[in-house]
Amino acid sequence: MSQFNIAVIPGDGIGKEVIPEGLKVLQAAAEKHGIELSFTHFDWSCETYHKTGRMMPEDGLEQLKAFDSIFLGAVGFPGVPDHISLWGLLLPIRRAFNQYVNLRPVRLFEGLQSPLANKKPGDIDFYVVRENVEGEYSAIGGIQYEGTDDEVVLQQSVFTRKGTDRILKYAFELAQTRDKKHVSSATKSNGLFHSMPYWDSRVAAMAEHYPEVKVDQFHIDIFTANLVRMPEFYDVIVGSNLFGDILSDLGPACTGTIAIAPSANINPEKDLPSMFEPVHGSAPDIAGQNIANPIGTIWAAAMMMQHLGHPEMHDTIMTAIETAIREGHALTRDMGGSANTQQLGQAITDLI
Amino acid sequence: MSQFNIAVIPGDGIGKEVIPEGLKVLQAAAEKHGIELSFTHFDWSCETYHKTGRMMPEDGLEQLKAFDSIFLGAVGFPGVPDHISLWGLLLPIRRAFNQYVNLRPVRLFEGLQSPLANKKPGDIDFYVVRENVEGEYSAIGGIQYEGTDDEVVLQQSVFTRKGTDRILKYAFELAQTRDKKHVSSATKSNGLFHSMPYWDSRVAAMAEHYPEVKVDQFHIDIFTANLVRMPEFYDVIVGSNLFGDILSDLGPACTGTIAIAPSANINPEKDLPSMFEPVHGSAPDIAGQNIANPIGTIWAAAMMMQHLGHPEMHDTIMTAIETAIREGHALTRDMGGSANTQQLGQAITDLI
Ligand SMILES: CC(C)[C@H](C(=O)O)[C@@H](O)C(=O)O
Ligand SMILES: CC(C)[C@H](C(=O)O)[C@@H](O)C(=O)O
Repeated sequence: MSQFNIAVIPGDGIGKEVIPEGLKVLQAAAEKHGIELSFTHFDWSCETYHKTGRMMPEDGLEQLKAFDSIFLGAVGFPGVPDHISLWGLLLPIRRAFNQYVNLRPVRLFEGLQSPLANKKPGDIDFYVVRENVEGEYSAIGGIQYEGTDDEVVLQQSVFTRKGTDRILKYAFELAQTRDKKHVSSATKSNGLFHSMPYWDSRVAAMAEHYPEVKVDQFHIDIFTANLVRMPEFYDVIVGSNLFGDILSDLGPACTGTIAIAPSANINPEKDLPSMFEPVHGSAPDIAGQNIANPIGTIWAAAMMMQHLGHPEMHDTIMTAIETAIREGHALTRDMGGSANTQQLGQAITDLI
Repeated sequence: MSQFNIAVIPGDGIGKEVIPEGLKVLQAAAEKHGIELSFTHFDWSCETYHKTGRMMPEDGLEQLKAFDSIFLGAVGFPGVPDHISLWGLLLPIRRAFNQYVNLRPVRLFEGLQSPLANKKPGDIDFYVVRENVEGEYSAIGGIQYEGTDDEVVLQQSVFTRKGTDRILKYAFELAQTRDKKHVSSATKSNGLFHSMPYWDSRVAAMAEHYPEVKVDQFHIDIFTANLVRMPEFYDVIVGSNLFGDILSDLGPACTGTIAIAPSANINPEKDLPSMFEPVHGSAPDIAGQNIANPIGTIWAAAMMMQHLGHPEMHDTIMTAIETAIREGHALTRDMGGSANTQQLGQAITDLI
């Protein structure tokens, strides 16, 4: 019998509300398929920071290392500056464990209303493949003449051949498994003089190895416009850390609610744990009300089981999500219903 | 009688098709209001680059300096890498003439169909105030270990107190003239460790001087999602060079077509010429077909006259644009019609 050890970090805000629903669904699906999951909880969060001055213990990464996967809720809460909380927990995990692929499926489900006019299920069905460990997300830089009118702040982006090529390769390989075999690269090579022309040149070089894949590129400004005008055009979108981040919030918004979107932080070599989380953040504005939509977290759980080699568990969970949305008896407020977090989590669990 | 000298740079692609329509409308409105406009044409473009190795002559900026305004079509064409063409013409003008404000109104007109469900005129009516001369758009950086597997590319963003404060001030002042008095700042301080926390701190400092203005901030990822979900929430959006660029393409896309959006590159001190252009680029895919929508350019012309101290001319042109769209006899393809560029330009001219 397959057995997996999962590190669970609910984190902050609604992270603490949605993770229990994810666990409930995982447990039910695991029982159904005869898989043993054991969960170890870590209370690392902004609360921890207030108590200890750290988001996680000094040996936090060491503690996580031996797990098969990490299941995370959300990080960040008012009172701790975002750059402190995120660079103290989420971002170091992505980096330390070489989770260089951030894979984010975007799909319009039957039963959900797109904010775009005249879109139906099937019209929106693409993946965002986001570079997850380098690029614009960087702590390199600083401030000169601090506290004076002459302040100059520098912020460095760092792109490497290795980092760029491996994410592009992942995107092209993914495209090859899809019907459309179509990669669209996000760029801004007209404004960002060094990083994006380089990115474009690596896209061109990688494309040569995949003659059967159709490739195009769009500057990030018009890319966001296109997602709204013609989402059906896209199949596999590949972008840098920042551009992938943007497109993978905008994409789900076009499917009715970003709260259903999952985020798989993948180490494709599998020598270190990958991490699975919803795309939405800690949402302080609705935290504590039990109205958060747990589907992003539950979909992330499905992706986790796929990554761990159990596509049958992935499919079981996805079918339950799809059915729950289509039947629409227990939808949360963001999807036009009035169920609370637990009711929707239970509805999906019951469908398994 | 007021007299203005306007430098006209049609540039590349559809830039050359829309500028004549802008001039036609300007001429008609100037006659109506007894203003004298004299136009001097510059053929600087990617074609010039092919002939001379430069997008503009070495003393190009010197030549432009004495004009009252610059009226520009679009820059960039396949065959010249984007970072060469843009950094050889558009971006140096913005910088040399201290056009640090990029002002971009976004409005849903009666007669146009938003791609968003259930949006009507009035639901979308905001300004993007974009920082236009520093930030992420930077030629600072380079490549190490070029041509090897070890390539590292650095791209520097540069934010200054002076550059940040003056754009924020412009946004807050603009908000004060509006009904909602609402500024929304675009940030990404959870990922970009230095630049965006700094930006946020300057927003907070500036807000103290404008107690009557409501202020909020959104990370750029959720900001793009919100523009699709609730565009009516926004009033004055302020963003860095890159974030402003993104939001001012996405915004107009939500109003039915980005081709109507104008871009005013403003030097508020007026000691050097400002520049007015459509938001859309040179659009090589439709260049030469005479189907480009000239409204972005014509609206930009209206903003130019406003900047030159002739709001009555601005209003005349805007009324003509609004009427032409509402009546819908001569709309271009992107607006659901079948008129060509000249027919729409003529229709607007006739309305003046
Ligand atoms: C062409 C490009 C450099 C330019 C920009 O990004 O500033 C354009 O997209 C714009 O918005 O004016
Ligand atoms: C919280 C933030 C740092 C994070 C990111 O930008 O990566 C989030 O937006 C995400 O998309 O996972």
